[in-house]
Amino acid sequence: MSNASNRPIGVFDSGIGGLTVVAEIMRQLPREEIVYFGDTARLPYGPKSPETVTQFSIEDTEFLLRNDVKMIVVACNTASSVAVDALSARYDLPVVGVIRPGALAAVSSTLRGKIGVIGTEGTIASRAYSKAIGKLDRDAEVIERSCPLFVPLAEEGWTDREVTLVIAHEYLTPLRDAGVDVVVLGCTHYPILKGTIGKVFGPNVRLIDSAEETASEVAERLGAFSLEREAGGDLEHRFYVTDVPHRFREQAERFLGGRLPRVDLVSIDELG
Amino acid sequence: MSNASNRPIGVFDSGIGGLTVVAEIMRQLPREEIVYFGDTARLPYGPKSPETVTQFSIEDTEFLLRNDVKMIVVACNTASSVAVDALSARYDLPVVGVIRPGALAAVSSTLRGKIGVIGTEGTIASRAYSKAIGKLDRDAEVIERSCPLFVPLAEEGWTDREVTLVIAHEYLTPLRDAGVDVVVLGCTHYPILKGTIGKVFGPNVRLIDSAEETASEVAERLGAFSLEREAGGDLEHRFYVTDVPHRFREQAERFLGGRLPRVDLVSIDELG
Repeated sequence: MSNASNRPIGVFDSGIGGLTVVAEIMRQLPREEIVYFGDTARLPYGPKSPETVTQFSIEDTEFLLRNDVKMIVVACNTASSVAVDALSARYDLPVVGVIRPGALAAVSSTLRGKIGVIGTEGTIASRAYSKAIGKLDRDAEVIERSCPLFVPLAEEGWTDREVTLVIAHEYLTPLRDAGVDVVVLGCTHYPILKGTIGKVFGPNVRLIDSAEETASEVAERLGAFSLEREAGGDLEHRFYVTDVPHRFREQAERFLGGRLPRVDLVSIDELG
Repeated sequence: MSNASNRPIGVFDSGIGGLTVVAEIMRQLPREEIVYFGDTARLPYGPKSPETVTQFSIEDTEFLLRNDVKMIVVACNTASSVAVDALSARYDLPVVGVIRPGALAAVSSTLRGKIGVIGTEGTIASRAYSKAIGKLDRDAEVIERSCPLFVPLAEEGWTDREVTLVIAHEYLTPLRDAGVDVVVLGCTHYPILKGTIGKVFGPNVRLIDSAEETASEVAERLGAFSLEREAGGDLEHRFYVTDVPHRFREQAERFLGGRLPRVDLVSIDELG
């Protein structure tokens, strides 16, 4: 076994949305190696119950642990909302979710103390962002809204369509009218729709991309635990999914900006 | 063990869309008892690979067989597209999918021989309707189109919104302009959007609801195998799902027209 700090970082998501977090980790931490697990056979996690999402998250983590990772990054807002505490309690390694980094960035950048949060139904129903923001700033006002059509619109690739703007207005106008000055994009798919979302809010509302903030938190935690990879040696990132739908390649390219990785298939029978 | 014909009919779907088929079976065959299995923890099947959908379909069928059913109804277009033959070969009881009944209805009602088929990505990629229609009428011209946003729109309950009509136009105008006179609603969710879909096609295009046609086929097959339930005795329909998302009740009411059944939760660990 090599030095513990030379082991890879494990990242999981319900599908491929977590690749936005991977892209940011690669950008901010180019020396680190990544093992990615996307549970594409059972995606999406967004509309499912906390019990089911927690069970899936444990199975996803077990898979990454068998790949000898030094840290778990829960690159899925829904799983982060309901399962990070359970994973942290269960496993003896650092677990980083996407909620706390996004909440921290929101609190530190709001001027008016009015923060909007958008996400899947599971994330919003959990009130995870409200709770995380409340712990950091008791006076902050948080307005949350689930946007169930954003993920299918992003996966359809309809990022610049008029109809996407109409739907964005439907979902987001109440937040804009409430006077939020910061909005957390609380789903890894949403940065793909950033242009359209920005059109609804205008230039004076800051959009928080949790992928960026999460990668920063990963860097900090690696430092705190002295787990930074030593220089030297080739990196071999690995990507595993539980299903390869026929549009996978197209979607993965959209998320990783054209750099399509090699992807291996894992049977869900090997989980659990 | 009671008389074989008094056993229930087993129906499965990736989620609750199959309840449209259940509602039709209850209407056409009020003496029959139903055991329904909805794989809500792993839905949707639409964007997933044939291999994964077949594996899930086998697990769903095994669950129904443990409930002593006399027939399997695959009330999911995606699963019907890729798994009915595998299930028929593997199990020694009648297996009814939704594809053949829809194809049959389309062929018998088209005047111009131009048939439109809409469905999920999995259903359309499989070309199952084209093949089934081609077997019945070699001269029929079939134009297929996947409509990935229709399921989330139906589940969001946006059945009458302007934006839904805009999206429907985007998907369906090429079929309308090609001159189809029959359109198969090749997904159990789509009848919920029938009003909007009808607005795009106008009154001279017939929309085929596969739920109705499938229930008729179930009736025929029960007759052919002498499996009709004898009169008398109370019916106790049973509904099982692998997850209960928080919007489940609302959605189930939309599908069953207000008659919400008792629903029991099954762990996916009990499958497979």
